[in-house]
Amino acid sequence: MRILITSGGTSEKIDNVRSITNHATGTLGKVIAEDFLNKGETVTLVTTKSSVKPTPHPHLHIVEVSDVNNLIETLEPLVKTHDVLIHSMAVSDYTPTFMTDFDTVKKADQLELFLEQKNTETKISSSSDYQVLFLKKTPKVIHFIKEWNPSIILVGFKLLVAVSKDDLLETARKSLTTNQADYIIANDLTEISTDAHHAYLVSESGLEEAYTKQDISRLIYERVIKDA
Amino acid sequence: MRILITSGGTSEKIDNVRSITNHATGTLGKVIAEDFLNKGETVTLVTTKSSVKPTPHPHLHIVEVSDVNNLIETLEPLVKTHDVLIHSMAVSDYTPTFMTDFDTVKKADQLELFLEQKNTETKISSSSDYQVLFLKKTPKVIHFIKEWNPSIILVGFKLLVAVSKDDLLETARKSLTTNQADYIIANDLTEISTDAHHAYLVSESGLEEAYTKQDISRLIYERVIKDA
Repeated sequence: MRILITSGGTSEKIDNVRSITNHATGTLGKVIAEDFLNKGETVTLVTTKSSVKPTPHPHLHIVEVSDVNNLIETLEPLVKTHDVLIHSMAVSDYTPTFMTDFDTVKKADQLELFLEQKNTETKISSSSDYQVLFLKKTPKVIHFIKEWNPSIILVGFKLLVAVSKDDLLETARKSLTTNQADYIIANDLTEISTDAHHAYLVSESGLEEAYTKQDISRLIYERVIKDA
Repeated sequence: MRILITSGGTSEKIDNVRSITNHATGTLGKVIAEDFLNKGETVTLVTTKSSVKPTPHPHLHIVEVSDVNNLIETLEPLVKTHDVLIHSMAVSDYTPTFMTDFDTVKKADQLELFLEQKNTETKISSSSDYQVLFLKKTPKVIHFIKEWNPSIILVGFKLLVAVSKDDLLETARKSLTTNQADYIIANDLTEISTDAHHAYLVSESGLEEAYTKQDISRLIYERVIKDA
């Protein structure tokens, strides 16, 4: 069983010194990787420079990525050569395209033109009181997974913030279909702390609950890895 | 001699999951702190969660901050109780105020109204193809230092990207005046790598050059700490 895990969060550059990141730390991916390695599995972990890493292990291979484009290039050959993907990485949904001062935007006749523009400065100037940043949707990486490898078992993640259990589970079930995922780990940011991590493992046929990161890992192992 | 060092980079939240960060890692602050501790000094280090930290030491106190507001609150009492500030932290120059989809901005009559708006969602929706993020200039923290403590010795930093030596030094000399700094470490991102860190120590009376982070630390110690 060749297991591929993604962890941490991509970041998208605004210029050479600034970027947009998300708050993912890579902790859950680390816990799952270490747990599976302890159980004798071989793990490839795709993660980012700033993420927390698992303890080194002879059967662990780590590949670092930075932004969404880089993730896509890296992931395609790996998805084609693995049996399971546990895709816990938080992938940036927007990437900066152009930043300029507010007055320039205010004076413009056609705002659409900004969508085509690119910054040429290496570090965008910071003199005006307000700036406007235009962002473009990134490709949905999870949509490519089954195109690249129809037989891979895909465990996706859905993170929402302060929603009801019903809303969370409904979003997770939709995600099974739209992303062709076999399982979705659904969780709410308000229920994640240092000690606790409440989550649901959602599939077409069932629903199970976990309360810690170790618990989530055990659930994925028992339901996804052992049966595969 | 009570020495205060700042390192790493602040980050500013867009919503509960996304933020704007800069690429500062805290490495230079770590090197300076460790060097000064080895020389018998006591160091207070103000840094961020994701920054690299110095080796623990009985005379090292670490305080963690997140964004610019948090930095200001934390720094004021510390600046008042220290003799030297080596301000190597990369402080965010803009903070997000409002994010919305491009069509909403396009249809608006008065773009100024967006500058007053705040997002109420905990996680901003990601359905439209383009988004627009409005950002507001943050207070210049370095301007407050001599107001808080007129007798503190202030070592500021100026990081530019791909400029000539003349432009870099001119910007650094201006910075001495506008920021009431006693010294400015001027450096160019294109001349910083894992092994090398080219920088100038600029003051009213002189100019000296360093080629590594250890070199920069030694220069600050000899010119700033020993003479003080």
